[in-house]
Amino acid sequence: MTTARFAQIAPQLEGQAIELPSWAFGNSGTRFKVFGSPGAPRTIEEKIADAATVHRLTGLAPSVALHIPWDLVDDYAGLRSYAAEQGVALGTVNSNTFQDDDYKLGGLTHVDAKIRQKAIDHHLECLEVMAATGSRDLKIWLADGSNYPGQADLRGRQDRLADSLATIYERLVELGPERRLVLEYKFFEPAFYHTDVPDWGTSYAQVVALGDQATVCLDTGHHAPGTNIEFVVMQLLRLGRLGSFDFNSRFYADDDLIVGSADPFQLFRILFEVIRGGGYGPANPDGHSDVAFMLDQCHNVEDKIPGQIRSVLNVQEMTARALLVDRDALAAAQEAGDVLGAHEVFMDAYQTDVRADLAAWREERGLPAYPMKAYAESGYQQQIEAARVGGTQLSWT
Amino acid sequence: MTTARFAQIAPQLEGQAIELPSWAFGNSGTRFKVFGSPGAPRTIEEKIADAATVHRLTGLAPSVALHIPWDLVDDYAGLRSYAAEQGVALGTVNSNTFQDDDYKLGGLTHVDAKIRQKAIDHHLECLEVMAATGSRDLKIWLADGSNYPGQADLRGRQDRLADSLATIYERLVELGPERRLVLEYKFFEPAFYHTDVPDWGTSYAQVVALGDQATVCLDTGHHAPGTNIEFVVMQLLRLGRLGSFDFNSRFYADDDLIVGSADPFQLFRILFEVIRGGGYGPANPDGHSDVAFMLDQCHNVEDKIPGQIRSVLNVQEMTARALLVDRDALAAAQEAGDVLGAHEVFMDAYQTDVRADLAAWREERGLPAYPMKAYAESGYQQQIEAARVGGTQLSWT
Amino acid sequence: MTTARFAQIAPQLEGQAIELPSWAFGNSGTRFKVFGSPGAPRTIEEKIADAATVHRLTGLAPSVALHIPWDLVDDYAGLRSYAAEQGVALGTVNSNTFQDDDYKLGGLTHVDAKIRQKAIDHHLECLEVMAATGSRDLKIWLADGSNYPGQADLRGRQDRLADSLATIYERLVELGPERRLVLEYKFFEPAFYHTDVPDWGTSYAQVVALGDQATVCLDTGHHAPGTNIEFVVMQLLRLGRLGSFDFNSRFYADDDLIVGSADPFQLFRILFEVIRGGGYGPANPDGHSDVAFMLDQCHNVEDKIPGQIRSVLNVQEMTARALLVDRDALAAAQEAGDVLGAHEVFMDAYQTDVRADLAAWREERGLPAYPMKAYAESGYQQQIEAARVGGTQLSWT
Amino acid sequence: MTTARFAQIAPQLEGQAIELPSWAFGNSGTRFKVFGSPGAPRTIEEKIADAATVHRLTGLAPSVALHIPWDLVDDYAGLRSYAAEQGVALGTVNSNTFQDDDYKLGGLTHVDAKIRQKAIDHHLECLEVMAATGSRDLKIWLADGSNYPGQADLRGRQDRLADSLATIYERLVELGPERRLVLEYKFFEPAFYHTDVPDWGTSYAQVVALGDQATVCLDTGHHAPGTNIEFVVMQLLRLGRLGSFDFNSRFYADDDLIVGSADPFQLFRILFEVIRGGGYGPANPDGHSDVAFMLDQCHNVEDKIPGQIRSVLNVQEMTARALLVDRDALAAAQEAGDVLGAHEVFMDAYQTDVRADLAAWREERGLPAYPMKAYAESGYQQQIEAARVGGTQLSWT
Repeated sequence: MTTARFAQIAPQLEGQAIELPSWAFGNSGTRFKVFGSPGAPRTIEEKIADAATVHRLTGLAPSVALHIPWDLVDDYAGLRSYAAEQGVALGTVNSNTFQDDDYKLGGLTHVDAKIRQKAIDHHLECLEVMAATGSRDLKIWLADGSNYPGQADLRGRQDRLADSLATIYERLVELGPERRLVLEYKFFEPAFYHTDVPDWGTSYAQVVALGDQATVCLDTGHHAPGTNIEFVVMQLLRLGRLGSFDFNSRFYADDDLIVGSADPFQLFRILFEVIRGGGYGPANPDGHSDVAFMLDQCHNVEDKIPGQIRSVLNVQEMTARALLVDRDALAAAQEAGDVLGAHEVFMDAYQTDVRADLAAWREERGLPAYPMKAYAESGYQQQIEAARVGGTQLSWT
Repeated sequence: MTTARFAQIAPQLEGQAIELPSWAFGNSGTRFKVFGSPGAPRTIEEKIADAATVHRLTGLAPSVALHIPWDLVDDYAGLRSYAAEQGVALGTVNSNTFQDDDYKLGGLTHVDAKIRQKAIDHHLECLEVMAATGSRDLKIWLADGSNYPGQADLRGRQDRLADSLATIYERLVELGPERRLVLEYKFFEPAFYHTDVPDWGTSYAQVVALGDQATVCLDTGHHAPGTNIEFVVMQLLRLGRLGSFDFNSRFYADDDLIVGSADPFQLFRILFEVIRGGGYGPANPDGHSDVAFMLDQCHNVEDKIPGQIRSVLNVQEMTARALLVDRDALAAAQEAGDVLGAHEVFMDAYQTDVRADLAAWREERGLPAYPMKAYAESGYQQQIEAARVGGTQLSWT
Repeated sequence: MTTARFAQIAPQLEGQAIELPSWAFGNSGTRFKVFGSPGAPRTIEEKIADAATVHRLTGLAPSVALHIPWDLVDDYAGLRSYAAEQGVALGTVNSNTFQDDDYKLGGLTHVDAKIRQKAIDHHLECLEVMAATGSRDLKIWLADGSNYPGQADLRGRQDRLADSLATIYERLVELGPERRLVLEYKFFEPAFYHTDVPDWGTSYAQVVALGDQATVCLDTGHHAPGTNIEFVVMQLLRLGRLGSFDFNSRFYADDDLIVGSADPFQLFRILFEVIRGGGYGPANPDGHSDVAFMLDQCHNVEDKIPGQIRSVLNVQEMTARALLVDRDALAAAQEAGDVLGAHEVFMDAYQTDVRADLAAWREERGLPAYPMKAYAESGYQQQIEAARVGGTQLSWT
Repeated sequence: MTTARFAQIAPQLEGQAIELPSWAFGNSGTRFKVFGSPGAPRTIEEKIADAATVHRLTGLAPSVALHIPWDLVDDYAGLRSYAAEQGVALGTVNSNTFQDDDYKLGGLTHVDAKIRQKAIDHHLECLEVMAATGSRDLKIWLADGSNYPGQADLRGRQDRLADSLATIYERLVELGPERRLVLEYKFFEPAFYHTDVPDWGTSYAQVVALGDQATVCLDTGHHAPGTNIEFVVMQLLRLGRLGSFDFNSRFYADDDLIVGSADPFQLFRILFEVIRGGGYGPANPDGHSDVAFMLDQCHNVEDKIPGQIRSVLNVQEMTARALLVDRDALAAAQEAGDVLGAHEVFMDAYQTDVRADLAAWREERGLPAYPMKAYAESGYQQQIEAARVGGTQLSWT
């Protein structure tokens, strides 16, 4: 029975693309400790090779996001070619204004015009990288904020943020109408009293002030406890400003755990709302929807490559379940005010085990039925552990 | 020392006005129990008399908000005169679409056009009340939402909400350019899965779509845990859409406790940001700022009239402290990047005990130095307990 | 494949018992509004008839919990016989010290010895009911607490609570060694500043001081945000003090939604830990485990009888999934430090759709395969709506 | 008026002691970035010199806590003498089982007996340090936990924790009856799914199983949102198991901000409950109470030495305010059920500005009236910035 229903929704699974973050393959951890892992990449090329492995086994991850300056190279055209040889593209460019001593008290919002300009210039440099890599999106996540009441003038910072973003946006628009500035919000951390872009409302207000090529990035781990994230998805789609997702999951804070591992039902609800709101499916020239799916996770205690494979599979499985919702039956129950009936239609799709169908679907496409198993048996991990000796393993810093 | 500084800020305390909710004087409680209290009012006139008593003793509460249909009367002109005799004005009109069986699954967002129209008509009726009472603001708080995933179509409800509000707004504008629609948001309760206006971003997006006479009401108890409320105050003032406050305080949920009782420092920070953002002080024709200060509290276990007195005093005391912040020294420390110095300037004002100065200030104005004590000694409580016998004490239902 | 695995665990599903709360069938709501529902019971007998209907269709709910004084009758022996005729037993007796004006500031913790004695006497009366009904458990949930810092002496209240409980416990022990006092904790509400039994630690410390017949009730909705509830389950089982569950679910506060509707994965984890810790399965004379499973939910917007059916089915489905965990493979992966491997074993069981197997299992036992459907087709709802006309529908108050 | 009341409570301020953590003087930060600071210490001796400076200016910080292995030296007797020369003593010894690769999946709870033994041996080494330094307390904070459901067997870890602690405790007792094992709990981080000692109940259950020389450490930043911390203080004092405080403050997570900076009223309530429960004042041989006051903070963006000065002053100021509570009037209002009256007595003390009285009090004792100002004018900062050139600044890692 599942199989028949699955066949109906299977075409919609074609072309699903989830961008991988290059930094997911390096070492990461908490403020207490970053544990090393054998085979961790030492160069951006090794990161790309790892990402390409995920794509080869799943067919789900055709591009890799860069983080500047972590992934700074001299020759972006060369990097682009290298990635293409590996079978993946270079994707979103992420800026970084939180790891230089100058940014201790802020970057784009800093009270000192020189430091603000430095932060702006860094973004202009990111735009040059985008020009070289062909990336569509510049994603901006700000660590800006303060730790103590009184430390900073909340209003002044917000106004300066608007000015800084306007300068960056102006240059971005010059790169072409397909480019996008995507502004991420985050509830807290690393600033602990106030964060300059703490919620979707702030991100929305800022991007609307910029123009049509500015949108919001929704990171699933960046909300206050109890926030109904699918509601935010609905609202941003309704307002036409949902640019991208940073997928991950969390139990309490921004834990950066594997997407779908903490609350799989929440992931289902989010993906249902994406589909409901028109944010899923082919839309732009390269066949992907305008709402970009990305992972933004850190694998602190688990293996990194399998961690990424598990993550894209989780998104795919929940997408399939969300597509299985009988929308007509749902609408009928909702219109009838049948609370339990509507809930049951919704849950019926969620409860459906799509794994066997997805395995068959993969095999039809020349992909391994079980990518996690295929990776374990591939020998890739042993190979990189043997080969990647010496040098410095990459991590955030 | 305090006294000299106090003298400088004292003029700014003149004319501070905090509207009282008529329902604060009736019985209230939790879903578990509403405890009765001797002397509780049985009519809107008795509520107004109680509110007027608060104003007489504090000089801070010149108006009373109405809740329709709780405060429905036949003759609003007569009620207005009665209030004027008592020394107070009729203020904000609050609508209610949550206590009729038809609204079980929503009002302005309901899937059934007939129920939506009923909810819209209720608001049009509220506008007629406003015309009769001379009230400036129509405040809309919606209980709309759902309890179970799948129960409702989040997007459809949001679109219907926009339509319903547009109809109401259109009529409101006809009443004159000084009238305002104020849309309140609330994180959760009484709906438990999703709420149709759950956050400031949603309220903001909705009111911007309506027009310039639509603004946001920030109820201090209506946020997710950990939300930086003063940041929201800053942002809404910056965007020109902070219409009013519903003051109260809470430890966990929407507890409706006395404003300033749970986290006095938070109240200080909020009021500082109001002042910083230009939301405090004389602005409109009747001498009050465009940002309306209101209480929205329920006194479940404490006496109601002293509860309201304590509340307006708390707002006044924290306003005085917030005015005491040495803004020049603060700005200098902020510009110098002196984290602890700026924090110390801020905390210095917060730590200052302004009570003696305020007592003297009151006496100069013919008010009792200590309103709580004055109430206890006034005999008013004994009088209403003796007089208000028989009839039905008012409560929410 | 599922079917073979299911056959292995099926025997452990025999005899699963989930007690229903009599109050789930009456009207309930929030502080804002209690909506009425056609066919709502007007007597305890009608509540029992409704509960028996749930049991008849599911085989999962052989007993009904009473709430005193909501379910006060003159003749408990008669009530017991009536229930037996309907096919169910009378279960846990729940006390109530939160709806009498005397208890406004507390019951078992009250500063006034007379009110404390009244609250103690109420519990002694509950023990008499238990003697008459043959109930094993006296469940005590306290609404005691305070709303304002300084209002109450936290320490004095805790000491008085210990004294009051000791008096009740002494009498309970006299009723026989199988009787149990079960002390429930709750994070907040209806008290908003402090709650006298707010967490499992307090409940544990209090029951240990009483003796072996005192245990803790874990209500799944009564925790701070982010609490790892299955950890608490593990700890209380380890300490030998997990007496019972009050099942429900919530998104934010104590929402009393259908168990498993908000976070089904959490329910799975909880049930896994119950099984892991020896809290599931036949144990006591009447064939049920010592850890009592109960619902404690309110159906505010959904139909009550189907709401209870859905709830016991959710518990059964998640129990089946939790039993499906391959414990040997899990232990092996855990011992090997294989983070993703262990997680995958765990998730494999959770992802398994057991509904078809459970339907077959039910049919083998003469139960309807699909109880929700069977109820809808049974005509019971139409029958009670027609028959229960006049009288007063029961609700909390 | 304040002055007269202050004179009454002043004697109780004598001998107040707040232990400083050696690591507060090194560099610290978040997972995103650790910012360096000029003059940061490069040796444990330099940390002690900085701590002694705080004590010299405030008279409040007579001892320094050590963290092993961060503060590992060859000659503890020598270190003790050095500290004594500087005017401070060596205090609590803190263990560390979270920064070695072996501890990636746990220490005292690890599934592998060899790694558990390594963790136990580390604690035995800490006990040897204590014997050499004369420290009373061994404080154990565990980073143990897991990130993914299924990753670990919660129950097995808890049992192994009990075994490991028992071995350590046995050796501690041999060092003498005044030594204490203090077990800290923490809600989350660095583990994100489950933490092995997440709440006071777990810490309490574990230490009770050990014996009378085992107590609980309450870190004010380690609770779920909304937790009433003063209630936990009350309960642990009542149960005789409150060993020590780690003071800091937070807005959202374990932010390690300056104690009293986020919610000063909460600090007041905590200190009131300490005093109420007998946890404050002279008690043990060296003149300090059995409840140890410690800071555990990180100064990420602010200057470290002034950050510590501000912190101990905050504790002192709130202690003074808490001592000012008119306990007789409070008890009378509580007994009378006068909710607002009791609250007002409580708030009256909190609202009192004690800074001028404390300044005078300091001067009487030969201390600078304004320690923050005195530090700024002392030239100490300039001196260490000039002197501490070269070498490696210390931080957590």
